[in-house]
Amino acid sequence: MASLPNGAASASAASSAAGGGPAVVDKEVDFANYFCTYSYLYHQKEMLCDRVRMDAYHSAVFRNAHHFRGKVVLDVGTGSGILAIWSAQAGARKVYAVEATNMAEHARELARANDVADIVEVIQGSMEDVVLPEKVDVIISEWMGYFLLRESMFDSVICARDRWLKPDGVMYPSHARMWLAPIRSDLAENKMEDLEIAMHDWNLFVEDTESYYGVNMNVLTKAYRAEHEKYYLKSAIWNNLHPNQVIGQAAVIKEIDCLTATVDEIREVRAQVTMPIKLDMTRLAALAGWFDVHFRGSKQNPATQEVELSTAPDVNGGTHWGQQVFLLTPPLKVNEGDNVKVSFTMVRSKENHRLMDMEFTYELHESSGKQLPAITTKIYLE
Amino acid sequence: MASLPNGAASASAASSAAGGGPAVVDKEVDFANYFCTYSYLYHQKEMLCDRVRMDAYHSAVFRNAHHFRGKVVLDVGTGSGILAIWSAQAGARKVYAVEATNMAEHARELARANDVADIVEVIQGSMEDVVLPEKVDVIISEWMGYFLLRESMFDSVICARDRWLKPDGVMYPSHARMWLAPIRSDLAENKMEDLEIAMHDWNLFVEDTESYYGVNMNVLTKAYRAEHEKYYLKSAIWNNLHPNQVIGQAAVIKEIDCLTATVDEIREVRAQVTMPIKLDMTRLAALAGWFDVHFRGSKQNPATQEVELSTAPDVNGGTHWGQQVFLLTPPLKVNEGDNVKVSFTMVRSKENHRLMDMEFTYELHESSGKQLPAITTKIYLE
Repeated sequence: MASLPNGAASASAASSAAGGGPAVVDKEVDFANYFCTYSYLYHQKEMLCDRVRMDAYHSAVFRNAHHFRGKVVLDVGTGSGILAIWSAQAGARKVYAVEATNMAEHARELARANDVADIVEVIQGSMEDVVLPEKVDVIISEWMGYFLLRESMFDSVICARDRWLKPDGVMYPSHARMWLAPIRSDLAENKMEDLEIAMHDWNLFVEDTESYYGVNMNVLTKAYRAEHEKYYLKSAIWNNLHPNQVIGQAAVIKEIDCLTATVDEIREVRAQVTMPIKLDMTRLAALAGWFDVHFRGSKQNPATQEVELSTAPDVNGGTHWGQQVFLLTPPLKVNEGDNVKVSFTMVRSKENHRLMDMEFTYELHESSGKQLPAITTKIYLE
Repeated sequence: MASLPNGAASASAASSAAGGGPAVVDKEVDFANYFCTYSYLYHQKEMLCDRVRMDAYHSAVFRNAHHFRGKVVLDVGTGSGILAIWSAQAGARKVYAVEATNMAEHARELARANDVADIVEVIQGSMEDVVLPEKVDVIISEWMGYFLLRESMFDSVICARDRWLKPDGVMYPSHARMWLAPIRSDLAENKMEDLEIAMHDWNLFVEDTESYYGVNMNVLTKAYRAEHEKYYLKSAIWNNLHPNQVIGQAAVIKEIDCLTATVDEIREVRAQVTMPIKLDMTRLAALAGWFDVHFRGSKQNPATQEVELSTAPDVNGGTHWGQQVFLLTPPLKVNEGDNVKVSFTMVRSKENHRLMDMEFTYELHESSGKQLPAITTKIYLE
């Protein structure tokens, strides 16, 4: 048979094949699918090399050291331990650093090597299971996935907050937003071409298999196309966009107050936005999604200096999150003054609660008053 | 955080992180890690396009149609159903085609479209759980993974044989062999260079992280190197070798009679072989592993025409299995007349029984009589 190297394909088909329901998360499967990635230093380094990410958290901690000095801090998903160590360096009395993977051992070594082993206590386990000896003043965590909510890690932060944050405690970050914007891009055409090449290749394969081996595979053509349409056209595409690819006004589709948000509030995201096109004679090829988070402290306990971490398209280069591109195929011709009205829904995948199924219904309202029929498309963030 | 697209990293660290033991296989995890790959038509097509594989099975069935005519056949892991359909076309009275993934539905469609739906009965489930209404005359299966035993799928074939094959039944294929050979290759140097580049990059990262962010990561340098040595130097490398890269005599390290083999016989493979070098002034950069299988029927019930499926290096191009390259770093200078003595052990990975941990101890006996000290290296087939 010879399968691909272990895990090289998306595992999203797994539980459905096994007939599992969506309700309960099998912890061992979750490890195989998700946490394992974070047990590699290679991947930790990738995140530690993201300057935008690092600068934002570093500034947030050290410019607001009054939030940390003499305080008790909880770092949810500490990874290599960097945020826990910074918290200690900023003056924390105690830092609990929780990590599910074996990376915990490296975090411990790193704390020791940086002379904060007496302050940083690394605890290996699921945040949901860990018991702390005391409540905490600050919860710090870098929990954001692609398009903010992929990975569903904020669930663990909410759980930590509800169980361990003092009533006047602060969240780092304190706020998060999801953005959507109309963009131009060659990706739509490229991917449609890739699909046609794949189908041409399939058709030759069907002919060959019939003539050489006497089996007609044509009955699977429709399923093959569906599989490849999903792969090429209906999967969110990671991209670092140039700001000039954004052809209209970006819109906020979700705002999260990290101090009060509940899992129910983030399990589904629904929004209706209208985005004015600001460029003439161009093509709307896709919508792009990104997020930003802010470090503002809390109302009772505000930040001295607010810090923003934005993953929007930026001329100075991007972050490891990039932006997610959701293709609209075929692209629509648009002009300045047109409006794109989008209804957006995002729910967790039934097969894997850390992946997202999205639906976009988009309508073009031309400046002439003409309105094109609404089109609905599904996109998978896997 | 932003993990890689789902499952993009090896999942082998998963169960160890979760603290699981090696004994019991969690079926849901096994689906997430393994079976899911086979639920994509893309992957099925890759196997169906392997002409060497297809020609061998096609010839084996149709040149030995007397094994199939009027008989009951079991296809273990039917995938798209091709072997089951051929068995029916060769005259089988009944074919049970067992498939664990949702690919079963496509196999059913394909049988219908090729007018053998009355003969081919597709059963979705694990071979271990399936109950057939009768014993079978033939078990056909394409169960071979990289270096024959990766994926451990032959376990399911053994289970099927012990439960469902009639005493005078035949196995397709009937025999299998694993081969090892000394090779020359630039891969060793390339991978060592990749490792040094990765470490140089890491060292810059350590400097930057200290100067920009006040954290000394140097304590993790050793672990980073170990992780990358495993990735670059100690992981089996898929390659389609040219026969002229084989610089000595290949040796059989394992022979399997599919009619009698037990799981105990394949759970571990141990061999000691001596391979004469046949090329002067060259470098032994690696050992290569591959396999072949034969279709000979059984003693009572021999094939009319024996067929071989070999995955050895071939000038006419290779198979989707390629060969597996196991680097010996650093390479050794060798000459015609030298002998390479290799002690080989392969066991299943504790974390995932479908992956393999290998150990090679190799000694060069020069034709001059000089003997170099033995070197031991571990290689992971993931």
